[in-house]
Amino acid sequence: MLNKIKIGILGGSGYGGSELLRLLLFHPNAEISYVTANEHAGKKISAVHKNLLGFTDLSFSATPETLADLPRVDVAFFAMPHGAALSLVGTLAEGTKVIDLSGDFRLDDPEVFESAYGRKQTAAGLQRQFTYGVSELFRDEIAKAQFIANPGCFATATILALSPLIKGELTSGKIIVDAKTGSSGSGAKAAANTHHPQRANSFYAYKPFTHQHLPEIEQCLSRVGTLDSSLVFMTHSMPVSRGIFASCYAETESEISTKELNEIFCEYYAGRRFVRIVEGSPDINWVKMTNFCDIAVHASGKMIAVFSALDNLVKGAAGQAMQNMNIMFGLEETTGLLFPGTNP
Amino acid sequence: MLNKIKIGILGGSGYGGSELLRLLLFHPNAEISYVTANEHAGKKISAVHKNLLGFTDLSFSATPETLADLPRVDVAFFAMPHGAALSLVGTLAEGTKVIDLSGDFRLDDPEVFESAYGRKQTAAGLQRQFTYGVSELFRDEIAKAQFIANPGCFATATILALSPLIKGELTSGKIIVDAKTGSSGSGAKAAANTHHPQRANSFYAYKPFTHQHLPEIEQCLSRVGTLDSSLVFMTHSMPVSRGIFASCYAETESEISTKELNEIFCEYYAGRRFVRIVEGSPDINWVKMTNFCDIAVHASGKMIAVFSALDNLVKGAAGQAMQNMNIMFGLEETTGLLFPGTNP
Amino acid sequence: MLNKIKIGILGGSGYGGSELLRLLLFHPNAEISYVTANEHAGKKISAVHKNLLGFTDLSFSATPETLADLPRVDVAFFAMPHGAALSLVGTLAEGTKVIDLSGDFRLDDPEVFESAYGRKQTAAGLQRQFTYGVSELFRDEIAKAQFIANPGCFATATILALSPLIKGELTSGKIIVDAKTGSSGSGAKAAANTHHPQRANSFYAYKPFTHQHLPEIEQCLSRVGTLDSSLVFMTHSMPVSRGIFASCYAETESEISTKELNEIFCEYYAGRRFVRIVEGSPDINWVKMTNFCDIAVHASGKMIAVFSALDNLVKGAAGQAMQNMNIMFGLEETTGLLFPGTNP
Amino acid sequence: MLNKIKIGILGGSGYGGSELLRLLLFHPNAEISYVTANEHAGKKISAVHKNLLGFTDLSFSATPETLADLPRVDVAFFAMPHGAALSLVGTLAEGTKVIDLSGDFRLDDPEVFESAYGRKQTAAGLQRQFTYGVSELFRDEIAKAQFIANPGCFATATILALSPLIKGELTSGKIIVDAKTGSSGSGAKAAANTHHPQRANSFYAYKPFTHQHLPEIEQCLSRVGTLDSSLVFMTHSMPVSRGIFASCYAETESEISTKELNEIFCEYYAGRRFVRIVEGSPDINWVKMTNFCDIAVHASGKMIAVFSALDNLVKGAAGQAMQNMNIMFGLEETTGLLFPGTNP
Repeated sequence: MLNKIKIGILGGSGYGGSELLRLLLFHPNAEISYVTANEHAGKKISAVHKNLLGFTDLSFSATPETLADLPRVDVAFFAMPHGAALSLVGTLAEGTKVIDLSGDFRLDDPEVFESAYGRKQTAAGLQRQFTYGVSELFRDEIAKAQFIANPGCFATATILALSPLIKGELTSGKIIVDAKTGSSGSGAKAAANTHHPQRANSFYAYKPFTHQHLPEIEQCLSRVGTLDSSLVFMTHSMPVSRGIFASCYAETESEISTKELNEIFCEYYAGRRFVRIVEGSPDINWVKMTNFCDIAVHASGKMIAVFSALDNLVKGAAGQAMQNMNIMFGLEETTGLLFPGTNP
Repeated sequence: MLNKIKIGILGGSGYGGSELLRLLLFHPNAEISYVTANEHAGKKISAVHKNLLGFTDLSFSATPETLADLPRVDVAFFAMPHGAALSLVGTLAEGTKVIDLSGDFRLDDPEVFESAYGRKQTAAGLQRQFTYGVSELFRDEIAKAQFIANPGCFATATILALSPLIKGELTSGKIIVDAKTGSSGSGAKAAANTHHPQRANSFYAYKPFTHQHLPEIEQCLSRVGTLDSSLVFMTHSMPVSRGIFASCYAETESEISTKELNEIFCEYYAGRRFVRIVEGSPDINWVKMTNFCDIAVHASGKMIAVFSALDNLVKGAAGQAMQNMNIMFGLEETTGLLFPGTNP
Repeated sequence: MLNKIKIGILGGSGYGGSELLRLLLFHPNAEISYVTANEHAGKKISAVHKNLLGFTDLSFSATPETLADLPRVDVAFFAMPHGAALSLVGTLAEGTKVIDLSGDFRLDDPEVFESAYGRKQTAAGLQRQFTYGVSELFRDEIAKAQFIANPGCFATATILALSPLIKGELTSGKIIVDAKTGSSGSGAKAAANTHHPQRANSFYAYKPFTHQHLPEIEQCLSRVGTLDSSLVFMTHSMPVSRGIFASCYAETESEISTKELNEIFCEYYAGRRFVRIVEGSPDINWVKMTNFCDIAVHASGKMIAVFSALDNLVKGAAGQAMQNMNIMFGLEETTGLLFPGTNP
Repeated sequence: MLNKIKIGILGGSGYGGSELLRLLLFHPNAEISYVTANEHAGKKISAVHKNLLGFTDLSFSATPETLADLPRVDVAFFAMPHGAALSLVGTLAEGTKVIDLSGDFRLDDPEVFESAYGRKQTAAGLQRQFTYGVSELFRDEIAKAQFIANPGCFATATILALSPLIKGELTSGKIIVDAKTGSSGSGAKAAANTHHPQRANSFYAYKPFTHQHLPEIEQCLSRVGTLDSSLVFMTHSMPVSRGIFASCYAETESEISTKELNEIFCEYYAGRRFVRIVEGSPDINWVKMTNFCDIAVHASGKMIAVFSALDNLVKGAAGQAMQNMNIMFGLEETTGLLFPGTNP
């Protein structure tokens, strides 16, 4: 590749933007043209993301009303609050590829979108051109796509845990997903639920039965196979900075052994570098700061448990976004993402 | 009450013993006669449990082979490792009441016991005289009992969450319990799974389908009502010191509203001071260091979620043990236990 | 005591107010008449401080412009943001005792106040009637006082660590105080420096050489003895909810042994229940949630190190405030405060 | 470079070994020949350091009595417990370069060594051939060295903070270093002081006046300049996994401004990529998992404060070790180490 991919980042001050920068600055085939962040416009990026001090002299710029006023880029990453991309994506220079980390373009049904996000789908025509970007499941589509709706963090963990079951038509009846997230999932802005004195010794459930990631999980799994089972999806808050852990419970038609189940998962994800099938249990500790999703499976009679763990900001956001960029530009999928976490 | 209850504590160096001491030292009707801890025999209690510095001059003593050699007490609390009480309880002076915090006497079926704890039930005759001590469920039996098997922490959280459902015969099909514990549940001895560098940023599942608390939950719920549903019980480790959080999922025969479900729980626990039915979700933050079990319920169609939170060392161990002592000696159940946690 | 002390709490929604409530609700001789909190006026206290659910039916009320409009109380606790008490204290019904937890009335010199808090001392006449309330140092004055300026958390830890040295004229040259605080010291409102994802893995210094507690420490120590030494006071943030740890370094004129130093401290605090001289090092873990200040001393040649640890919200705020109330009303100083922390 | 540097790692199961592996596996010019770990001999490395799953198929081997029995390597890293390298280094094939992460060869004076580590210096002749490897200070010596004694984590943070002062002969009188460490500094083996339930809400001082890093700091600073000042070095434990934070207090002969001091530091470390002079305060959060040491300076009158922060396992151990390897083999010093930490 002679020319580097020119990158724009819209909304670079949050944690999604922060991690996009950490990854894209070191991508051998990428070059960042601009990073917008209205509240920090004019400020050095490294004054906000102090981990990047010494790695970039870039500054944040303001977001113009029409993105065509920005320098032409090959791909624009949107890491803005939910809702902001709806009106902005259409103003990009024609032909620009888009990877949107928000929920704005994930849901195909405008009514489902409105019910999940509490706002109208004002860009329904554009939305139909988006591909839902679980890199491990839809590589061919992603390779051809101009627009990628990057999956949610909970959604990625759940979909990767359940896809082999749905594809193999292994389950019957309800599937229960008990999901837990670290505090960075709430974003970079201070809020009551992420106030350290409270959160540090805290564990609680929230949005019972109504988390906005449920519809994108159902929509995605319905493409993977026949989703006969109905999904129960329950979210909880953990007192750690980073990590998603999903515990998924399902029943099979006939008895299956842990060994058989494990083989099904190993085969399903054969050659997929960022899904690791592990023994016992995954641990958010082993995937933190990485693009890996670790999965373990257990069976007992007809009962199945699948555990998945990932870093909500990497495989659950910026990492998978860059993985999708790699696929879209014909690069090795793993470029710039093949690094491990740390012990401890 | 003219005479104070004379107390013996067998195994006072662990976290169960530590919390028994914190509570019993301030019980207006109790007097501690001795506290054993072989590894610390001769040492001041406050040299080990430094929080108690300035509150007691007691020292640890050694455990004799025959407990009848110890001063006569009204009640002996056993806070020893699993297995140790089996041979010791029988050596107490006759008539001594016993509250055992270990799993040694909880299970009625010796085979189930052996399978759960990996050791023979060598005191089966004695075991049949034990009452399983969930204070909220079996007050009358406890009041008459000489021997109490104090429930496990996970078991208490799960049983209190599910009893109103089982009693009311509300559920059909599988019940899934996704349970999480803080690190103090592993005891006061340093071990790989509680090594701080690892545990501090960690969340994982363990003992899938096989946690030893499952049989005592099933045994107890079968007494509460008809346990048609089979139970799936899955345990996880949280990166906090204290706390149990149980997320329980069940299905009802017919649709029920959250409001109706809430009323059932409020009625079921009416007058029971240590169960608080809360809105939204309980949080381990609000029950830490206390004897409360906070519960919240949610319904969606025929699907039910019950969340319960408690402190594993208080309501899940020493607090409930003292609550049972209160009941056994005809005291107000709440004596010495009516204090709140802190914010934050 | 036949009649209970009638209590008013001004500003009950923060952590200071929260801990005042936790303590005063259980004080055998106190009765809370009202608790104000403008943003929560009309709300149940237990809906905000959920740890108190089941312990009080009180609701927050609004703060009137003139406090004389509130029910007459024996003592009003002010737990408002810095600056708010300046204009309010004077509007209380005459004769009402006051314990102010803010910095408004701690500093005798209006210029020092203005420089420390960035606001004018608009109640200088009233301020002169305030007694600085380190309970262990000024018991006689406190007993006679109508107005108490309750010391800051850092100040309490530092003053208790240094007073025996200053009183005994043991030091010469600079004294260095390296102080660390938990996140609850920043208050109950979410802010960037207490955002959990950031704070959880963080340690940093702040306000170098300029923390507003320095002048109250100097002013207080100058009363204790001759403060020849100049003080260097440096504050740091720890990633825990609660706790102050102060490491104080000083030089003596002539060599002293750790044993001699320890005896000086033991003697100085003889009979003072809430100061515990410990071996090795204090630990915030052993004083959390309590009114204790644990202190350890070490000497090497002419170099001295004194370590002190306390809970910033109890001995560093609400606990010492209630201790002062006890002294002011002729009660046993320890009433309602004699409880230990927990292990772990 | 045509041939990759052949690497041996002695003692690969601890945290030092773990981080050496994380770094060396991705070094473009390095190739790992063997990794020993007696307790795990025969086990896959990725079964112990699960973060490395998918990155290496290497297994641990046993440590032979004579290291010459191992495959010939260009450089051997020792990451063994203190004491183990003393007898082993001499058994390597002649000419092998050595980088020892333990304290075995850091101290030139055998008596000082014995007093610091409680064991005899049994390899005094060999020790005299070792170069103390603070990469930023002794690059030329390191480039020529066969044997490197890699500095301690506390020592690195302190030396980097104080060297510009000592070199410039800026201070007079005592220098106080108040240093804090995360729990991984205690190693990978579970122990009482790193037991999660206790450590998670804990802050305490340890080894007052006697930490074994003090002599290596003094020895090193005496080479940097004239160490007139005597050092007080006090270590504390923080409740985080990773990080060293050192607060250093010194006095200057004449007044200096923060700006002047900052310039001195910027100039001193000009061109040294891994020392970043920052405003306000460094934070362990911004250097975690990286090879950076962030430093901030403040002056007030004649009083100086220097704060330094680094990751104890990277710049404080494995990272600096690899940096030294780069220097020894004529590579760019930063090879394989130029990656930032994360936000959050």
